[in-house]
Amino acid sequence: MTQPDITSIASCAMDLADTARRLARSHFRQVTAYDRKADDSPVTVADRAIEAALRDILRQRFPEHAILGEEEGLSGDSRNLWALDPIDGTKSFMTGFPLFGSLIAFTRDRLPTLGVIEIPATGERWSAYSGRTFFTQDGQEQQAAVSLCQTLETARVYTTSPDCFSAQDLTRYNTLSRKAAVRRYGGDCYIYGLLASGFCDLVVEASLQPYDYLALVPVIQNAGGIITDWQGQALGLHSTGKVVAAATPALHERALAILNA
Amino acid sequence: MTQPDITSIASCAMDLADTARRLARSHFRQVTAYDRKADDSPVTVADRAIEAALRDILRQRFPEHAILGEEEGLSGDSRNLWALDPIDGTKSFMTGFPLFGSLIAFTRDRLPTLGVIEIPATGERWSAYSGRTFFTQDGQEQQAAVSLCQTLETARVYTTSPDCFSAQDLTRYNTLSRKAAVRRYGGDCYIYGLLASGFCDLVVEASLQPYDYLALVPVIQNAGGIITDWQGQALGLHSTGKVVAAATPALHERALAILNA
Repeated sequence: MTQPDITSIASCAMDLADTARRLARSHFRQVTAYDRKADDSPVTVADRAIEAALRDILRQRFPEHAILGEEEGLSGDSRNLWALDPIDGTKSFMTGFPLFGSLIAFTRDRLPTLGVIEIPATGERWSAYSGRTFFTQDGQEQQAAVSLCQTLETARVYTTSPDCFSAQDLTRYNTLSRKAAVRRYGGDCYIYGLLASGFCDLVVEASLQPYDYLALVPVIQNAGGIITDWQGQALGLHSTGKVVAAATPALHERALAILNA
Repeated sequence: MTQPDITSIASCAMDLADTARRLARSHFRQVTAYDRKADDSPVTVADRAIEAALRDILRQRFPEHAILGEEEGLSGDSRNLWALDPIDGTKSFMTGFPLFGSLIAFTRDRLPTLGVIEIPATGERWSAYSGRTFFTQDGQEQQAAVSLCQTLETARVYTTSPDCFSAQDLTRYNTLSRKAAVRRYGGDCYIYGLLASGFCDLVVEASLQPYDYLALVPVIQNAGGIITDWQGQALGLHSTGKVVAAATPALHERALAILNA
């Protein structure tokens, strides 16, 4: 079977992101039904509605592709797999905080080849494919590029929350981030977009799921950055969920050294 | 001397906020000159430019009023005092994170009677005077009202960063926030706007300055909420900088009990 080319994959991904934006906006800052999964993460009506809509589009366009989604899990079996996180930053979404996102990744033979970080509330989007990462807002498109930051002491470091770390990993993260010029909290997928655009230099997190991190890989790499697990291994479908993303190899190496000390 | 009425005060405050928005946007996500004050907080060129512009406006409109600003300190001596924080959330601003704000407060005889939380990058604004808090975005205005949340176990709790607390206060904050339904980090003044609009229920912080918290007082109170220091005392020019803001008296009382246990 011939494989769809990246142009048709990218075109579909933009349609998915447009749909996610429209639906997320229609639910944002409305009354949301709260729900708790076994892992205690909140899930909104919007989460389910968006994933269902994206799956419908994919079933029409690429009925033979596999889909991994936060809400409905894995369906299908194919070397072509889409990973979907309808609302990344559910706690932000629940509290009217506008920097939640929708994450769309396309992987072929387990390699992430396209990633989209869509930010519905602000209308920002980072999309990465064919070796480049684009940032778009208000109809303006520009190529994203990471900063040149080489040293931890001059780096701006982000993580979403200290709560994503185990006690031991939090100690390591604190050792690392206290050496940095700036450390900040909050942001979920948004902070990887900031890294791709050169506004921060290092992101360290844990407890991420494949549908959280797969889309981030092309966004960071195509912008010139590095993203791996805490061992320096490439992120794949079965990674640990511990992620280090850095603007430069020197900064990445320094972060790994401290996180594994 | 007759005192200006609240209408002319509010009109001036909106002009100040418009000016802050225009200038902050012109500097945001541009190259910023980094600077470190004695307390290690970063200060950008934007900070200074905005405060200077707001002071110019105030000197023209109300030359006899006193002004307290983050950058230039206190000038003048009057029962009418404006408090200005040109960029609240400097770390956000420095890292391209769009939820920084400009804070404008007007106090008469030390009582905060007007407060504005202006969010330049998203075009959101909470403005409070004459007993009401308004939220405006994209030309739409609506009255803001806090949630009805009475219990900590169902509350959504925010703080900007664990780094704002002393070690002892962080332990107290953790005890409090771990009982909540949701705890989240990041946001600076933005999270008080979310509280005023009912999207979160409790905010606990420390290390705030008068130009940080004075504008928040009318925004929270006019929306039906409560904001005090950690002892339950009203916030004034010489408070401790420890702040508790809650949607309801029951939630406020519970928070104080835990923070002072």
